[in-house]
Amino acid sequence: MTKLSVGVLGATGIVGQRLVSMLADHPWFNLQLVTASEKSVGKKYGEAVNWVIEKPLPSKYYDMVVEPTNVDKILEYGVDIVFSALPSSIAPSIEVELARKGVVVVSNASPMRMDEDIPLLNPEVNADHVELVEVQRSKRGWSGFIVKVPNCTTAILTLPLKPLMDEYGVGKVIVSTMQSLSGAGLRGVPSMLILDNIIPFIEGEEWKVENESRKILGRLINHRVKYADIGVTASCHRVMVLEGHLESVFVELHRMPSSLKEVSRVLSTFKTNKIKNLNLPSAPSKPIIVRTEKDRPQPRLDRMEGNGMSVVVGRIRADNVVNGVKFIVLGHNTIRGAAGTAVLIAELLVAKKLV
Amino acid sequence: MTKLSVGVLGATGIVGQRLVSMLADHPWFNLQLVTASEKSVGKKYGEAVNWVIEKPLPSKYYDMVVEPTNVDKILEYGVDIVFSALPSSIAPSIEVELARKGVVVVSNASPMRMDEDIPLLNPEVNADHVELVEVQRSKRGWSGFIVKVPNCTTAILTLPLKPLMDEYGVGKVIVSTMQSLSGAGLRGVPSMLILDNIIPFIEGEEWKVENESRKILGRLINHRVKYADIGVTASCHRVMVLEGHLESVFVELHRMPSSLKEVSRVLSTFKTNKIKNLNLPSAPSKPIIVRTEKDRPQPRLDRMEGNGMSVVVGRIRADNVVNGVKFIVLGHNTIRGAAGTAVLIAELLVAKKLV
Amino acid sequence: MTKLSVGVLGATGIVGQRLVSMLADHPWFNLQLVTASEKSVGKKYGEAVNWVIEKPLPSKYYDMVVEPTNVDKILEYGVDIVFSALPSSIAPSIEVELARKGVVVVSNASPMRMDEDIPLLNPEVNADHVELVEVQRSKRGWSGFIVKVPNCTTAILTLPLKPLMDEYGVGKVIVSTMQSLSGAGLRGVPSMLILDNIIPFIEGEEWKVENESRKILGRLINHRVKYADIGVTASCHRVMVLEGHLESVFVELHRMPSSLKEVSRVLSTFKTNKIKNLNLPSAPSKPIIVRTEKDRPQPRLDRMEGNGMSVVVGRIRADNVVNGVKFIVLGHNTIRGAAGTAVLIAELLVAKKLV
Amino acid sequence: MTKLSVGVLGATGIVGQRLVSMLADHPWFNLQLVTASEKSVGKKYGEAVNWVIEKPLPSKYYDMVVEPTNVDKILEYGVDIVFSALPSSIAPSIEVELARKGVVVVSNASPMRMDEDIPLLNPEVNADHVELVEVQRSKRGWSGFIVKVPNCTTAILTLPLKPLMDEYGVGKVIVSTMQSLSGAGLRGVPSMLILDNIIPFIEGEEWKVENESRKILGRLINHRVKYADIGVTASCHRVMVLEGHLESVFVELHRMPSSLKEVSRVLSTFKTNKIKNLNLPSAPSKPIIVRTEKDRPQPRLDRMEGNGMSVVVGRIRADNVVNGVKFIVLGHNTIRGAAGTAVLIAELLVAKKLV
Repeated sequence: MTKLSVGVLGATGIVGQRLVSMLADHPWFNLQLVTASEKSVGKKYGEAVNWVIEKPLPSKYYDMVVEPTNVDKILEYGVDIVFSALPSSIAPSIEVELARKGVVVVSNASPMRMDEDIPLLNPEVNADHVELVEVQRSKRGWSGFIVKVPNCTTAILTLPLKPLMDEYGVGKVIVSTMQSLSGAGLRGVPSMLILDNIIPFIEGEEWKVENESRKILGRLINHRVKYADIGVTASCHRVMVLEGHLESVFVELHRMPSSLKEVSRVLSTFKTNKIKNLNLPSAPSKPIIVRTEKDRPQPRLDRMEGNGMSVVVGRIRADNVVNGVKFIVLGHNTIRGAAGTAVLIAELLVAKKLV
Repeated sequence: MTKLSVGVLGATGIVGQRLVSMLADHPWFNLQLVTASEKSVGKKYGEAVNWVIEKPLPSKYYDMVVEPTNVDKILEYGVDIVFSALPSSIAPSIEVELARKGVVVVSNASPMRMDEDIPLLNPEVNADHVELVEVQRSKRGWSGFIVKVPNCTTAILTLPLKPLMDEYGVGKVIVSTMQSLSGAGLRGVPSMLILDNIIPFIEGEEWKVENESRKILGRLINHRVKYADIGVTASCHRVMVLEGHLESVFVELHRMPSSLKEVSRVLSTFKTNKIKNLNLPSAPSKPIIVRTEKDRPQPRLDRMEGNGMSVVVGRIRADNVVNGVKFIVLGHNTIRGAAGTAVLIAELLVAKKLV
Repeated sequence: MTKLSVGVLGATGIVGQRLVSMLADHPWFNLQLVTASEKSVGKKYGEAVNWVIEKPLPSKYYDMVVEPTNVDKILEYGVDIVFSALPSSIAPSIEVELARKGVVVVSNASPMRMDEDIPLLNPEVNADHVELVEVQRSKRGWSGFIVKVPNCTTAILTLPLKPLMDEYGVGKVIVSTMQSLSGAGLRGVPSMLILDNIIPFIEGEEWKVENESRKILGRLINHRVKYADIGVTASCHRVMVLEGHLESVFVELHRMPSSLKEVSRVLSTFKTNKIKNLNLPSAPSKPIIVRTEKDRPQPRLDRMEGNGMSVVVGRIRADNVVNGVKFIVLGHNTIRGAAGTAVLIAELLVAKKLV
Repeated sequence: MTKLSVGVLGATGIVGQRLVSMLADHPWFNLQLVTASEKSVGKKYGEAVNWVIEKPLPSKYYDMVVEPTNVDKILEYGVDIVFSALPSSIAPSIEVELARKGVVVVSNASPMRMDEDIPLLNPEVNADHVELVEVQRSKRGWSGFIVKVPNCTTAILTLPLKPLMDEYGVGKVIVSTMQSLSGAGLRGVPSMLILDNIIPFIEGEEWKVENESRKILGRLINHRVKYADIGVTASCHRVMVLEGHLESVFVELHRMPSSLKEVSRVLSTFKTNKIKNLNLPSAPSKPIIVRTEKDRPQPRLDRMEGNGMSVVVGRIRADNVVNGVKFIVLGHNTIRGAAGTAVLIAELLVAKKLV
């Protein structure tokens, strides 16, 4: 198969770097375009970027010229898919304009995620929502379209919630997060404010978790998403960890599991039929890994499981206060929670012949 | 008033250091005895201790000779009160022996906290439980007695729960904690295991929070504590912060507050009649401080409020999933959660003429 | 004595906060004016500032209105002294204009530090250089004048070098630094770049240490500073510490000490006659404290010695490679290395009747 | 070639883990034996070890039974080479006994490093010193022998010193280190003592750097090492970094380089003829990598260069105080500074037909 040509918008940020890194040896995609803000335009990518991720910058991209994030310029490149890691302030106008002009946009930016004709995809959970692409196109009259990647915390949370919902029925979900620094971007959290400290607030995050999760876990009925009938409440906090969000989750279950071992099996054998048989290159063999040690998962030790695409669940305990279970779940926020899921979505689009 | 003479058992650990520091200029108490483990015995306290707290070691204690933690030796000193910061493994036998022989023991060690004739005191919340001292003495036939300081996380949590319970009635309580390194003791958490990481497990902690809180918030009926009729579920995690436990709390309320401002007022004006008019020197003027900024409290910035004896509540939000409120509460774990509450309890015992 | 009225330019940054904190209860100065950049102007100081230092914001300053850093506006206030914590880019023009119009400027900004008619003062070391004020005024025709505070690392380093130079004669000085985050300002070092890391470069720092130290340690001859005849070479590195620069120093001595104890005594008894009998309120009783434990000084434990105005020397060792001694010295970079020395200089100016 | 069978003594510590990880896919060696202290003996390795390194524990070693570190037990296994990561307190007696009984011991333990008949090898620098093996055997009458791995800081330092010495002649060397936590072992540095702090002392380290470097850089004359005629002085400090020692080095040169670019070339093209043509599997293609950015190397970003076997030099500056150059050098302390060099030495022994 000839590789599809793709571009990354906002390629110098932390999510942009993850995208570039994941696309470097991708069997289906060929990175042709990187854009960034004014101060990087015209520079070599290798010089413009402050590369901080653990794998080195792929040398073949070092000399790529950084282009401006400008619709005409992007169209010139004629890429099949653009991955957007643009800031919320500028993402909507550029993404809409690109979709209107025929480009397929897979976007990490939060605006429009809750639009009813925009698929908000966490593939193992709701790949079937991709059907909204047709609704979107016909309603908006665009030749391209936009698909959204969920908020990082939500992408991680909905993975274990899905099999629990399918197996036992879920009522209330109470989640407290310990989120990593990378979630705020390369320069988002000044060291003086976080050393020996916690910042117990992340702008907009709780609303996203509480609402996006209900859309993602919802069912498609008559070409519309009927939100899942669950109640999610979240409290979000920033801690001094480089990568990896840890979430403490309490879940009310409608039917009681016969044992915690059973819950563990339900989670660890989750291999949704949503993307079964599609052989998507970035899909982890196990989207959910269950650890049984008393003190795992831990961000530094477990965040790279499944190349950062698996979430790791641990400390599954019965909970007779919420009438269900409590557990912790860890996911790599800039891979599973952003760049990795974006690439996985793009693969899904290809497999579904939407690109 | 002549000062009472007191001793600190386990004086070189982090809680021991806090006790020594708080007793240095105490108006009622005179520190006469410090004990520690074998390797420190016979040394000067200033040489035996690896002093790490922010106020310097009071110079008058530098030359005190460290004694063994040995009942006979302790009795020789004839102190009126001993503060125990002993490890759980050795605390019970020594504390019981001392109480039997007439010493008043205020103990931070966890064993025996749930014994029905042992007062587990967080003075602003349940100073009246001190009445159990008489039960204990008559039942056990001791001339001294033992009073226990709650688990650190629980001491902090029960402060805001008390006024909420009194005002609105409390049902379920779901709490996730981000706990500081000092909670594990001076050498408890190796740096290689926590840097860029979270350790999502603290031995025994969740059980303590779930059970001790129901005893502390219970009512004394017929010389027995009737546990509070609430359900508490906890998940506890260690993060890279020196001092200060931050707790994310979701509380079901039986009656709905008319506004969040009202909740804030109920919390910040909490000045229990439990210790009113007793003028205890270590009682903070406001046991609960409410912050209204969107990102407070923060451990490094707020843990020393009220000399470490106040807890700080922030981010009070309505919660229609748990049918109540969610908020965060921060407390200094080795002061409010240990040494400070121990001293406050001792003051209460004096005020109640039990010493 | 009536207090002098003073202002702080750039009052919301970390050095500005330290200045505000130190001026709160100052016996000679009365803070009347705080200025900051556009986004803070017109706000209450307490709301504009992101207060991060350990002592709370003095409540009396909470409601002060933040003024623009504008010469006319500053002159309106008629303050006797302004403390400048302005960024280098805008400091020179504003400071010069203020001095020209009669204001006494004590400045932390680096430009002009090496101008030959500008005193660069570390009072215990070279208070006599204040004589340059007259040279400056007569040469420039200003009614006010400018005095500069040294670079933070240099202020700390020159304190132990001075008594060594006086006692033994100094040749080469080789210094490697481990500098704290606060030196880069509140938002200077992103947490993602420094966690589990060292940034081995600080713009301009090495040049400053190598050159400013020779001016500060120089002698005043004929109203000019003759630079000290020493060779200083530096390598500067940023580490994950909140406050406090630690410097590893190797010093060639012209005359050999008879013992390390003697060196220790020479340092710890340093009480320069430069400011003797002036009774400056911020002068620490011991500018140099010598610790003899094998592992001190440590930034977190020792940076507040002498209210942050003392430097702490430790690990004094003979060195037969450089033919002298090696030691480490720690100083609080935003107090001794900036705000504190600025206040001490202002006190010197008052004592010398230059204000 | 049939693989040689090897064992790792002290396999659960951090250096032991690195050894196990490096041996997992080694083309020449086959790991057959792991030993540890009493509390691990008899357990499966995967359960006994607290695995913290970034690559997962090789699954094939999970079930290996941990043996006691006991000479008879080790001999039973009949391994060709043992890698010792034993604590200094017990290393000498066991290593000597093993060597006496015919085992080849490659040891990371510090005792005996300076013995005149014990090769202290950093292969690219002094592989020829392996000749001392014959001296050792004939002198001691052992059938096996002991070879020592240098101290971590010294292994890293001597790599750039070697080509500088060969090219320009070296006089004085002044080095200040910022060393990582792993150097003290898995549980060596309590988090409460190092957070927001530096510990400016490492037991015995400075002496090792100052003396071992002169042996390693020495020349073999008449079957004895004549120490290099250089003067090394060191000051060693622990900072909050997981892995990677950064060293700030000032070097007096006897002949002046014509340019800094030339120095850079001399370092980066260093490919000693000491191990040329031996094709040792663990030898990095470039033992010294030179970075030209103003702020590199950095521990987190650069420590894994050459799989942790290259050192990275940066910030090469002329220095007219020491009459030479100053630079920084970073190396992975548990790979280049310990386990990796141990494996490289074992490969050298094989290539030289000493095993």
